[in-house]
Amino acid sequence: MLKLHFVKNTRAERIAWLLEELNLPYELNKLEFTQDSLKSGTHRKRHPLGRIPVLEDGDVRIFESGAITQYILARHKNGGLQPAVDSPVFPEYLQWFHFSEGMVMPPMNIIVVQKILLPPDRRDPVALAQAQKLLGKALTPLEEVLEGREYLVGDFTAADIMLGHAIYQAGQLMDQSSPNLQAYRERIAARPAFAKILAMR
Amino acid sequence: MLKLHFVKNTRAERIAWLLEELNLPYELNKLEFTQDSLKSGTHRKRHPLGRIPVLEDGDVRIFESGAITQYILARHKNGGLQPAVDSPVFPEYLQWFHFSEGMVMPPMNIIVVQKILLPPDRRDPVALAQAQKLLGKALTPLEEVLEGREYLVGDFTAADIMLGHAIYQAGQLMDQSSPNLQAYRERIAARPAFAKILAMR
Repeated sequence: MLKLHFVKNTRAERIAWLLEELNLPYELNKLEFTQDSLKSGTHRKRHPLGRIPVLEDGDVRIFESGAITQYILARHKNGGLQPAVDSPVFPEYLQWFHFSEGMVMPPMNIIVVQKILLPPDRRDPVALAQAQKLLGKALTPLEEVLEGREYLVGDFTAADIMLGHAIYQAGQLMDQSSPNLQAYRERIAARPAFAKILAMR
Repeated sequence: MLKLHFVKNTRAERIAWLLEELNLPYELNKLEFTQDSLKSGTHRKRHPLGRIPVLEDGDVRIFESGAITQYILARHKNGGLQPAVDSPVFPEYLQWFHFSEGMVMPPMNIIVVQKILLPPDRRDPVALAQAQKLLGKALTPLEEVLEGREYLVGDFTAADIMLGHAIYQAGQLMDQSSPNLQAYRERIAARPAFAKILAMR
C-alpha cells in the first residue's frame, strides 16, 4: 500500500489531498514538525534533508510534492486530474502546476520562517516585507486567471492541488485578499477530499 | 516555429539547452536583464510578472521552465530525455526534476539578490549567510547521488537540464565545492548543446 510520510500544514497535505481525490488507499505516517521527528536518523533515511512529503510505494521511495503528484497520476491513477497532452488546456495546466514552487512558494517559505519559525529577536522585518511584496505580485495574475473560472484551467486538476494548496496557505499569511482568490480558497476547501485533510488532527 | 524569449544566465538557458539537445528548430528572442526589457508592456503581455523563459508555439504561450520542458518533451519530441513511466528510474527522474525549484533555487534566488542584484548598501549579510548554508545543505545529497554516476539517474535526462543548470549556476556562486559535483558541472558544460548556449553572447 502507498505510505505517505506527513506533517500537517505542509506540502504533504497536497499528496494526502490528491490521494483522497483519487480515492486511492494509503497509509499515513503522521510526523511532528520538530527537529526530533524530521531530523531523526529514521526520517533522514527517507529524505536526506529530513523534509516531507515522502511517499513509499513498495521498493519506490520518492520526495518533492510535484514529483510525487506526477508519479501517482502516471503510475497509479489519473482520475481526470491531468489533461491529455493534446488537450487545449495542457500547456496552462503545466504552467500553473510549476508556478507553485517556481513563484509562490519561495516568498511563502521566507514569510513562514520570518513570521512563525524564527524566535522574535532573530526576525528581520525587511526580509519579511520584501517577501510579502513578492508574494502579492505572484498572486496578482492568479486573481485575473480565476475571473469567471471555478478552477485554474477550468475543470479541477492536479494544478489546483499544487498551486491551490499554496494559494490556500498564502491566504492564511496575507492580510489583504482579492475576491476571486478568496472565493477560490473557499471552493477548494469545500471539496470533500481537501476538507478531510484540513480537518485532520 | 518555436519562439523562446531568452536572457543569458537565467533559467531560459535550460530551455535553449533542451531545444539544442533535441535538435529542434527554434527562434531566439534575446532580451536584456533590465527593467526596460523585462518589465515592458510588450513582455508583460507574454508573462504578467515580466519573467523569462516564455515559449511561444503557434497559439500556445507558456512560462515556467519546468512546465516548458514537460511541454516540449510531451508535444514535440522526447528524444529519450524523459524515462518511460514504467522505467525503474522514472520516480528518481521526477524527484530530481522537481528538486531544482523545490530545494536548490529558493536559496539560489536569495544569493543572487544579495550578491549581485541589490546595491551594496541594501545587502543583508545575515540573509546571504543563511541562504548559502541552505544551498550547501541542498547540494549535499546530490554529491552522494553522483558517486559513480555520470548523470543524475544514470543516463542523461531532462532532470540534468532542470537540476543540472541549477547545480551549474550554484558552482559559480559557492566558494567550496565537492568532487562529484565539480566533475558533473564539467561534464554537462562539455555537452555540445549546453556548451553552445554557454558560449552565446
